[in-house]
Amino acid sequence: MVVVMKSGSAAADVQRVVERVSELGYTPHVSRGQFRTVIGAVGGKDPQSREQLEQLPGVDNVMGIALPYKLASREFHEADTIIEVKGVRLGGPHVNVIAGPCAIESRELLFEVGAAVKKAGAAVLRGGAFKPRTSPYSFMGLGVDGLKMLKEAGDQLTMPTVTEVMDPRDVEEVAQYADILQIGARNMSNYNLLMEAGKAKRPVLLKRGLSATLDEFLMSAEYILSEGNDQVILCERGIRSFGGEARFMLDVSAVPLIQERSHLPIFIDPSHAAGRRDLVPALTLAGIAAGASGALIEVHSCPDRALCDGPQAVLPKNFERLMEQVRQIARVVGRKTTDWNGSSE
Amino acid sequence: MVVVMKSGSAAADVQRVVERVSELGYTPHVSRGQFRTVIGAVGGKDPQSREQLEQLPGVDNVMGIALPYKLASREFHEADTIIEVKGVRLGGPHVNVIAGPCAIESRELLFEVGAAVKKAGAAVLRGGAFKPRTSPYSFMGLGVDGLKMLKEAGDQLTMPTVTEVMDPRDVEEVAQYADILQIGARNMSNYNLLMEAGKAKRPVLLKRGLSATLDEFLMSAEYILSEGNDQVILCERGIRSFGGEARFMLDVSAVPLIQERSHLPIFIDPSHAAGRRDLVPALTLAGIAAGASGALIEVHSCPDRALCDGPQAVLPKNFERLMEQVRQIARVVGRKTTDWNGSSE
Amino acid sequence: MVVVMKSGSAAADVQRVVERVSELGYTPHVSRGQFRTVIGAVGGKDPQSREQLEQLPGVDNVMGIALPYKLASREFHEADTIIEVKGVRLGGPHVNVIAGPCAIESRELLFEVGAAVKKAGAAVLRGGAFKPRTSPYSFMGLGVDGLKMLKEAGDQLTMPTVTEVMDPRDVEEVAQYADILQIGARNMSNYNLLMEAGKAKRPVLLKRGLSATLDEFLMSAEYILSEGNDQVILCERGIRSFGGEARFMLDVSAVPLIQERSHLPIFIDPSHAAGRRDLVPALTLAGIAAGASGALIEVHSCPDRALCDGPQAVLPKNFERLMEQVRQIARVVGRKTTDWNGSSE
Amino acid sequence: MVVVMKSGSAAADVQRVVERVSELGYTPHVSRGQFRTVIGAVGGKDPQSREQLEQLPGVDNVMGIALPYKLASREFHEADTIIEVKGVRLGGPHVNVIAGPCAIESRELLFEVGAAVKKAGAAVLRGGAFKPRTSPYSFMGLGVDGLKMLKEAGDQLTMPTVTEVMDPRDVEEVAQYADILQIGARNMSNYNLLMEAGKAKRPVLLKRGLSATLDEFLMSAEYILSEGNDQVILCERGIRSFGGEARFMLDVSAVPLIQERSHLPIFIDPSHAAGRRDLVPALTLAGIAAGASGALIEVHSCPDRALCDGPQAVLPKNFERLMEQVRQIARVVGRKTTDWNGSSE
Repeated sequence: MVVVMKSGSAAADVQRVVERVSELGYTPHVSRGQFRTVIGAVGGKDPQSREQLEQLPGVDNVMGIALPYKLASREFHEADTIIEVKGVRLGGPHVNVIAGPCAIESRELLFEVGAAVKKAGAAVLRGGAFKPRTSPYSFMGLGVDGLKMLKEAGDQLTMPTVTEVMDPRDVEEVAQYADILQIGARNMSNYNLLMEAGKAKRPVLLKRGLSATLDEFLMSAEYILSEGNDQVILCERGIRSFGGEARFMLDVSAVPLIQERSHLPIFIDPSHAAGRRDLVPALTLAGIAAGASGALIEVHSCPDRALCDGPQAVLPKNFERLMEQVRQIARVVGRKTTDWNGSSE
Repeated sequence: MVVVMKSGSAAADVQRVVERVSELGYTPHVSRGQFRTVIGAVGGKDPQSREQLEQLPGVDNVMGIALPYKLASREFHEADTIIEVKGVRLGGPHVNVIAGPCAIESRELLFEVGAAVKKAGAAVLRGGAFKPRTSPYSFMGLGVDGLKMLKEAGDQLTMPTVTEVMDPRDVEEVAQYADILQIGARNMSNYNLLMEAGKAKRPVLLKRGLSATLDEFLMSAEYILSEGNDQVILCERGIRSFGGEARFMLDVSAVPLIQERSHLPIFIDPSHAAGRRDLVPALTLAGIAAGASGALIEVHSCPDRALCDGPQAVLPKNFERLMEQVRQIARVVGRKTTDWNGSSE
Repeated sequence: MVVVMKSGSAAADVQRVVERVSELGYTPHVSRGQFRTVIGAVGGKDPQSREQLEQLPGVDNVMGIALPYKLASREFHEADTIIEVKGVRLGGPHVNVIAGPCAIESRELLFEVGAAVKKAGAAVLRGGAFKPRTSPYSFMGLGVDGLKMLKEAGDQLTMPTVTEVMDPRDVEEVAQYADILQIGARNMSNYNLLMEAGKAKRPVLLKRGLSATLDEFLMSAEYILSEGNDQVILCERGIRSFGGEARFMLDVSAVPLIQERSHLPIFIDPSHAAGRRDLVPALTLAGIAAGASGALIEVHSCPDRALCDGPQAVLPKNFERLMEQVRQIARVVGRKTTDWNGSSE
Repeated sequence: MVVVMKSGSAAADVQRVVERVSELGYTPHVSRGQFRTVIGAVGGKDPQSREQLEQLPGVDNVMGIALPYKLASREFHEADTIIEVKGVRLGGPHVNVIAGPCAIESRELLFEVGAAVKKAGAAVLRGGAFKPRTSPYSFMGLGVDGLKMLKEAGDQLTMPTVTEVMDPRDVEEVAQYADILQIGARNMSNYNLLMEAGKAKRPVLLKRGLSATLDEFLMSAEYILSEGNDQVILCERGIRSFGGEARFMLDVSAVPLIQERSHLPIFIDPSHAAGRRDLVPALTLAGIAAGASGALIEVHSCPDRALCDGPQAVLPKNFERLMEQVRQIARVVGRKTTDWNGSSE
């Protein structure tokens, strides 16, 4: 840390800071400038230190230097983390698409959409059984029945599956049926859920909160990692902004920024960002061109009858065309699209 | 709803919308303008209708007219809801201050701060036993031991108490010790927690999420109300904005806007908004002047040793001075400050 | 400045930074920590230094310590600036209200509203002759004819006047008619206009841009001050945020934050923030309670016929009631409301 | 427009709205629902109508249907506008890169960088002679001397040129030297500058304001178009958001959304969005993949000595590599990169 004193602060104030810095376990280094004195604090690690020092008399501000997360950082783990689920490798040089309906509405729909996305090259099947809804009066998913359908579809199509878990009490059961646990944007700071997911033996797909900074996002990943689960996949899904033209604003710069700071794979979710299917292709391709490890795309064969988020679901035939462009752009930015229909490219 | 067709949309498209509107249980009313046709849809209530209609060919957009929440609305319940807890009345004409330390760090601290805020006129004692922390390496509260101390302090000081609950599994236990359950900003969209709190027999203090619109905020209240718990206190605590000068940006306009739409009491939390104690008086008085039902203020007798959020805690002597101004401003805007030290004003 | 090196940076990189710091006119102070080296840079003042140092190999980031503005800062000028215009004192211990119609639509309207706000205690008369409009097809004000009416009204009512100037070519002419020049939010970073206003012999009321940080706001004031005009009045008028419930979000925390950093008076504009008159009283009182030097309030005697911003204009009778509460709250927070109808309170 | 009455509004209120709608030149259509009455207003065009109707008793809100801009809309001009400048075609199927140094610092630098970007395939040369700077103490450009250098460089390299104009008084002179006039983000709502640019006989590159909605952006274009200049190129350059990881947040969704609403070309500016050169490639490719008509990229041969925005300037050798990827991605999304080094692809 660097403690910056106010201009003209008293010698006694500087002395008090130096003593407190030592008391907190750091080594102080004082540099006196023309107008201000600055005290470097090196070596300690009390997480409350910064807040406490900020309050001492004569202190203007305290600037942190150390990263707040450890296990999620590139400093801790330099190479890209690659997560392997039933033969599909996510992260590193690989680009993969996770696709399926928003909610599992019926067995028929799930199998129909699943077969279509598999054929087009999607690597992982998604489908919601527990749905977080803004309104308590909306369709909330089929629950465990939906989980069973998802497992069956994944087995039959030989695709790993991902589904959302919203309640710490459900983690164990969801992990029995799904290959990857998803934690949604609204639960990114639901720390008890994160810790429970950290104890599960499944990879976790963690979505960025609607107004989370990237450091807060990585801190949420750190919660999972610190419980012993090192298989975390990050996902940028759009942040809240003014204007309301798109439902949320996809932050493509999050992709290279996360990759600089962390070894974890970073996906994008164009469907929830856009909220409308006509924007999905442009956002998907933007994310892949920016270097994302892949995309989560909602597909529905009859979206104007969908019980959830129909307006953002892509039709199977449009999904197929989009996948072809994803594949080409992935190649331009030097990524592999192996695992696509079994053939390596 | 009002379905607005694109300019130049075909008669067949209009016809399809009319049919679908009927199928969804609404009565359609078509008005044909010079450039556009507009179809009013009256009487139905399928929550997916709007999304589904938006996707039909020729539709430009669908504008909602009905409110998405019912029980939380002024239309449903015109008079202000007043919540009574151990003789303290919250909401309606009453202005009250809820105060105490951020976290319960020790029995001594809690009793010392509790006595000080009681003396200054605070009506409710706050203190955190389960603390949501951005970092998994920070102090997370004393848990059940903290709850016991809080109950003891409340009993001794004859103050009702409020404390945060973060996990649906803890709701029952927390409700045994505290008079009011708090749901924090990061859990505003933790719907399973909201539903569990809706089943508890305790008033719930619900904080607005960092990037929640007011309608989303009221929808979260609706989750609690729809489970049968009609004692919800809302709390504006600052939203995420650019700049970073204050930690969060206190949205004072939320106070009159919530009061227009809802009968529920609306408090403000200047401490978490500011993140620094020197801003707390200005923000507190601003909130009360804007018509809030009260404020949540963090007080600490030794904040530069605090284990959590020390920089925003007010010292007891400054709190006392602030309370005097709160009382005066409440009177200017026509509010009662009964319950303050037993004397009605 | 403090230059923070990356962890494990090479000695040669540190050496290069030390040399460049010296070359730029600063004295370097090196402190080597366990993981990182930090170089303090004291005494120089090249405005490009920070950007240039950030790019050197091995540098993680450069943290500024000095304020980017000088003349606007409390460090430069400790006492509150009080601006006197035709006997009205703005800033320091004084609280004043500036009121009038949004646009000058006619001589009759201006005199009618002017007389009403004067009677209620407003100190300064506002009225727009040049109106910045989002649409090129909207009413843009009466121009010089409006300026003449404003001067006449100010003279007759013995009130100083304020009006907006949008074009550097108009500054001289507007300054002939109005006592205070207003620069609107959309022109806060119109640096050529700021410099022209800096050359005028009139106080300038500068509104904060819709997405300006407080430092950017003070830098815009610095543009005016650095041209030799030391009479700048700042005005918070709401920032852009998500949600759209109020038109803009009034940032009340800007009031104490500006007062900490700067000696200049800071007003609030509840009318433009709210965009609807029913919110104006709550926001006005919030701003005064937070310590603002006053408020800018739009008043119209027939707002549903107004040519500009009618929905936010307060009716004269409601304005009078509001003024009474402003007066009382100003007193609670220790401010003077002299100049109000000639009598000192 | 659609006027939505409050639930339970009186018949007299409805009648008053109907009369006022007629008075304003619209034809009213009343539909009475179970709870609410809705009045369609068709055919009028008074820009103040909406604001005025909103204020009538019993009115809940007024929803607009018509677009606020005309000349900029696809409804008015269906085909993509293609702008030709000295043989370079911008917009429609063409993808082009505009590149050069942020500021023109010297003749040598401009020619060196100009030759490098030309060789790599850039179509247009950029360079600032008048620089808008946050601080009045920063380097503000070489002014007319810079303009002369730019013209000379453009002539010698046979590249059209673009440079910023900040002051309505400078438009005529800048137009003598540069082929395209740039209006910066901070001046997007400087309406007098827009009108002056609308009278010039040069294409105008208009950047989106830091917190402008897309409709406000198109309204600013409308100001230029309505003065008779139909050659407007739009440019998304990042919006203000929380977090501060990238300097501004590039809104890639603006690209398809603008293309849906308007016929004007839409570029992206990754350099100003990122504020750091290491993010420029990812953001550039994201923008092109999203369908942008091109990108504005800052290039500098010695950025750590640059007088302005050095940290975001790309080195010539990296620019060359980036151009190759731009070309490939443009092809994937079906665009032409003719004009690149004279060869059509």
